[in-house]
Amino acid sequence: MRIGVLTAGGDCPGLNAVIRSVVHRAMTGHGDEVIGFEDGFKGLLDGHFRPLDLNAVSGILARGGTILGSARLERGRLREAAENCAELARRYGIDALIPIGGEGTLTAARLLSDAGMPVVGVPKTIDNDIYSTDRTFGFDTAVTVATEAIDRLKTTAESHQRVMVVEVMGRHAGWIALESGMAGGAHGICLPERPFEVDSLVKMVEARFSRGKKFAVICVAEGAHPAQDSMEYGKGEIDQFGHERFRGIGNVLAAELERRLGKEARPVILGHVQRGGTPTAYDRVLATRFGWHAVEAAHRGEFGRMTALRGTAVEMVPLAEAVTQLKTVPENRMFEAESVF
Amino acid sequence: MRIGVLTAGGDCPGLNAVIRSVVHRAMTGHGDEVIGFEDGFKGLLDGHFRPLDLNAVSGILARGGTILGSARLERGRLREAAENCAELARRYGIDALIPIGGEGTLTAARLLSDAGMPVVGVPKTIDNDIYSTDRTFGFDTAVTVATEAIDRLKTTAESHQRVMVVEVMGRHAGWIALESGMAGGAHGICLPERPFEVDSLVKMVEARFSRGKKFAVICVAEGAHPAQDSMEYGKGEIDQFGHERFRGIGNVLAAELERRLGKEARPVILGHVQRGGTPTAYDRVLATRFGWHAVEAAHRGEFGRMTALRGTAVEMVPLAEAVTQLKTVPENRMFEAESVF
Amino acid sequence: MRIGVLTAGGDCPGLNAVIRSVVHRAMTGHGDEVIGFEDGFKGLLDGHFRPLDLNAVSGILARGGTILGSARLERGRLREAAENCAELARRYGIDALIPIGGEGTLTAARLLSDAGMPVVGVPKTIDNDIYSTDRTFGFDTAVTVATEAIDRLKTTAESHQRVMVVEVMGRHAGWIALESGMAGGAHGICLPERPFEVDSLVKMVEARFSRGKKFAVICVAEGAHPAQDSMEYGKGEIDQFGHERFRGIGNVLAAELERRLGKEARPVILGHVQRGGTPTAYDRVLATRFGWHAVEAAHRGEFGRMTALRGTAVEMVPLAEAVTQLKTVPENRMFEAESVF
Amino acid sequence: MRIGVLTAGGDCPGLNAVIRSVVHRAMTGHGDEVIGFEDGFKGLLDGHFRPLDLNAVSGILARGGTILGSARLERGRLREAAENCAELARRYGIDALIPIGGEGTLTAARLLSDAGMPVVGVPKTIDNDIYSTDRTFGFDTAVTVATEAIDRLKTTAESHQRVMVVEVMGRHAGWIALESGMAGGAHGICLPERPFEVDSLVKMVEARFSRGKKFAVICVAEGAHPAQDSMEYGKGEIDQFGHERFRGIGNVLAAELERRLGKEARPVILGHVQRGGTPTAYDRVLATRFGWHAVEAAHRGEFGRMTALRGTAVEMVPLAEAVTQLKTVPENRMFEAESVF
Repeated sequence: MRIGVLTAGGDCPGLNAVIRSVVHRAMTGHGDEVIGFEDGFKGLLDGHFRPLDLNAVSGILARGGTILGSARLERGRLREAAENCAELARRYGIDALIPIGGEGTLTAARLLSDAGMPVVGVPKTIDNDIYSTDRTFGFDTAVTVATEAIDRLKTTAESHQRVMVVEVMGRHAGWIALESGMAGGAHGICLPERPFEVDSLVKMVEARFSRGKKFAVICVAEGAHPAQDSMEYGKGEIDQFGHERFRGIGNVLAAELERRLGKEARPVILGHVQRGGTPTAYDRVLATRFGWHAVEAAHRGEFGRMTALRGTAVEMVPLAEAVTQLKTVPENRMFEAESVF
Repeated sequence: MRIGVLTAGGDCPGLNAVIRSVVHRAMTGHGDEVIGFEDGFKGLLDGHFRPLDLNAVSGILARGGTILGSARLERGRLREAAENCAELARRYGIDALIPIGGEGTLTAARLLSDAGMPVVGVPKTIDNDIYSTDRTFGFDTAVTVATEAIDRLKTTAESHQRVMVVEVMGRHAGWIALESGMAGGAHGICLPERPFEVDSLVKMVEARFSRGKKFAVICVAEGAHPAQDSMEYGKGEIDQFGHERFRGIGNVLAAELERRLGKEARPVILGHVQRGGTPTAYDRVLATRFGWHAVEAAHRGEFGRMTALRGTAVEMVPLAEAVTQLKTVPENRMFEAESVF
Repeated sequence: MRIGVLTAGGDCPGLNAVIRSVVHRAMTGHGDEVIGFEDGFKGLLDGHFRPLDLNAVSGILARGGTILGSARLERGRLREAAENCAELARRYGIDALIPIGGEGTLTAARLLSDAGMPVVGVPKTIDNDIYSTDRTFGFDTAVTVATEAIDRLKTTAESHQRVMVVEVMGRHAGWIALESGMAGGAHGICLPERPFEVDSLVKMVEARFSRGKKFAVICVAEGAHPAQDSMEYGKGEIDQFGHERFRGIGNVLAAELERRLGKEARPVILGHVQRGGTPTAYDRVLATRFGWHAVEAAHRGEFGRMTALRGTAVEMVPLAEAVTQLKTVPENRMFEAESVF
Repeated sequence: MRIGVLTAGGDCPGLNAVIRSVVHRAMTGHGDEVIGFEDGFKGLLDGHFRPLDLNAVSGILARGGTILGSARLERGRLREAAENCAELARRYGIDALIPIGGEGTLTAARLLSDAGMPVVGVPKTIDNDIYSTDRTFGFDTAVTVATEAIDRLKTTAESHQRVMVVEVMGRHAGWIALESGMAGGAHGICLPERPFEVDSLVKMVEARFSRGKKFAVICVAEGAHPAQDSMEYGKGEIDQFGHERFRGIGNVLAAELERRLGKEARPVILGHVQRGGTPTAYDRVLATRFGWHAVEAAHRGEFGRMTALRGTAVEMVPLAEAVTQLKTVPENRMFEAESVF
């Protein structure tokens, strides 16, 4: 068999671990050939690829980033790809294509699959918001980085009687905020899944101070938004869902809290450090398993599917199922988190 | 409600996170009182306990160890406890007891439960070998520590053309060896679940060197044992299952490999660093959730059960089910690991 | 002897290690009593203090923040303190005062010392810019945190063909930017010590891309400023030294580079994570030694001085000398750094 | 100029950072050519070398090990090298040789230098025991790894009322034990520099337990040895200096303490994890500076010298001076450490 592999979308710790696993399993387990397309679907369309053998993937397991590069593809070119699927597969002589990517990539994968390309997807996102899989690799690393930051910020907040507002990634789903907030022992967590009440945050902080505690840490997802009109000192834009949105919610919320509490409140925007660098052990194992199972699925001819963690098992689920909706934080998980504030 | 909590058995990162979560959920969510027994079941029998409030558990989320202490209990005293259950519960006025511990502790918990004590167990082991739960807290931390060690050892092995034998914890189940071996990119993994062939290890290393690679790392669980008579330079003891056992398998295996390969082979015994210290973010979240759900179960009157992770949900499973067998590494997980050596 | 200790100014990893060391050395080595003033000089003036014994400092060596709290003092109250020195010392019965703090604190310490208070200072700043000492504790931790961030950002930058601008702390001296930039392998470092040329940065990035490298990381101190008029797309404010200053230089520089290079450039502002959390081993050792030597100096009656690292030795230097000028990054250190870009 | 570089002796975090720095400074700063000899002096004698350019050293700054490999050389072949110095330099056309290594390597370097080879040495050892330099790179990483292990072990010791004996590297000098013991807050530190009294350790532990503390951690250098006849339960070998030596002092001491204290005492032998893996920021900076200054020295014709850290400056010192004696831990440093036990 000849397998093509590519990585697309934003950076995510564990991409190289998947690539390595695909090459090892394919070559050692099946005697396959593997080629890697460069810069995502662009490499597939433009013919930029290189053979990948054991030496090519030696030493990359723990390395962040992707040795194949990654790039966003314009919609137009994606359609071009779908229309020329059969020809593309023939041109490179590939019997299976393994795209590793997030929601956009998996949607593209589904398009190609529908058009006849033998595709096995591998889901990837630090946001953990892909439906059909319990977890995605990259997420544990992001949570770990954010938790370490909160650990550090707490000692400063405590010594200086301050409120710290930590903005973490998560535009549409608040998994990183939820888990790093819980792990770091944040005293408030704001998720995109439901508007937060500024009043409640203010009361929580005041209650803490009145109990003799001299600091508070609030963990806010970049996609979180306040309940409408709950910010006293400014108005945001109203989006298509009627939500009031503020650019740079971490900064805005810190300013608001400082004004209302009459105490120092400082924002920290974690940004890209959450999505790069060496993956945690958890993410390396999950990524390696996903690569392994993707190759097996290809050999079983199970195309149009992607790898998914279900309990302790890695299973194959239809791409169609995976991309139709986002996996958001359910009520009961928020409820768990709130009670240990 | 008045809830008693205790920690028993070996150290495990996340114990304090459970205690904190129990106290927060019980007090804030239900207005309960919580008391903590000191040094495991000993405190219960000897009347050593203290009230736990929010201040008592402040700042312990990320701290290793257990603020309640832990100790092993002799079998005789355990029977004593079972026989006096009703009296003990009355003496302390507790409506629920939440013991946090490993297999032995959960077996004791079951005994007490059968004798009428209202018990909700929380499983704990770095070995991840408790049946009925997908994962236990402490395991992720142990794997992380072992993986960091393997990462470090690989560069030394590589620069010096050496074989490194890393012995990790796991007497009866090889989960730590399996996952840290996969995450660290070990070239051989030896588990207690099946005898390993020294010959295969020798061949694997020789194959690597002939391919131009100049080092190899082998990850061996402390409970791993070679296939009988496969060690050339010595004999071990034959245990009750007919397995040939060597004390300090890491040292023995390194010596054996050095002799047979004619290359330097060095053992590294990780030991207790795997079971102490600050828990990873993953373990903090899981421990926090377990504590939360244990309190809820107590309030629903679901006794004789323990918390368990099933997929993404925390569920309650019968203690009886959890302690009847060990969760060992299944064949297919070993198979996955082997193909990325 | 009765010794008073206090911590003042911003947070700095290692403060607790100094406090612990002072208490241990004073009590165990000399049979002294130690009291800790709360919230810096405020506690001294307002009579907020508590006795510190071995139990009070147990377990704090590795903890960030300061168990004594810290606060800024208005100038007026400082004068008040100086004027009432003798009375204050008498009121608390202290034979020596050990203030641990940065430039402001040491200046205050000098004032008190000149007014007759028996003071031994311990310098503290993550910025490493205190004259007379080779290093200050806290600096190594800050550099370590910033370096880990750069390590993570590089893999993302590389996979996505991007320029990353990392803003680190350092308002007046660029030590953190210098050392984390060198340690992280940044391709450009901008310090407050001399204006940077945007043109040079643009050329450096272009040269890298033309050599086939697909990313660049620039490490910029918060106090760095461009050579006048070298920013094409905007004007800053001119400060008292004639320097053109921009608020949020990291954001501004990233925007400027993106426009001029036609490539994605992303800012990451590390902020407060650099100044909190557990200190590195290096900082714990240095902080412990400083505490030890401060007590010894008090017993020798060497007042009006502060601890300083000189080579491998800890020596006592006059406070007067330490606070008269800032230790900035010398030309030759910049020169060293530049040649490994 | 044409510069040859090689790495010899045991692994040490920062070797790659030196190589990278030498190549950058030589090529970018001076337009030099650089070649790297493989596996230490062996590569020099056997003609195994490769050109090193910017691409060859790209991405290695943070990587442990050495891209050039390292090997021990028999004494005989070293003499061979010395005798053929001029011929060797001519054969490879090198104007300067930069060997990076420990005491043995620097002694060899001195031999070659005396024989006429233009040599600039770079000292390297995790043990920090090279005379003439305040610090060596690799040491900070070793101390950091050992300190993290002690941090982890303390929580386990505390929860289980145990004594932990941590054996760290340091055959002839106890720097790692001293600094990791101080940074980790060990309660006893045993160095090779002077025999330790088992009685004192026993008394210290008993004193702790009687004060209500329930654990103790002792940090022992592998080269530490007890005062003669102070071990009750066994005799060691008497070495050439009249010191009583035990193989595996960590294990022996733990057994001795367990017997005498009647409490669990567990050894942890850290081993090779201390000398591999990614270097700390401190070590990367120091290694980078050493590489830079070695190239500069070569260009100034300052041969027969090695780089040395003196305070904040990197200076060149005679190889002769550096290798005549070991830098051991002086009395006053031990004294400092003892008072914070």
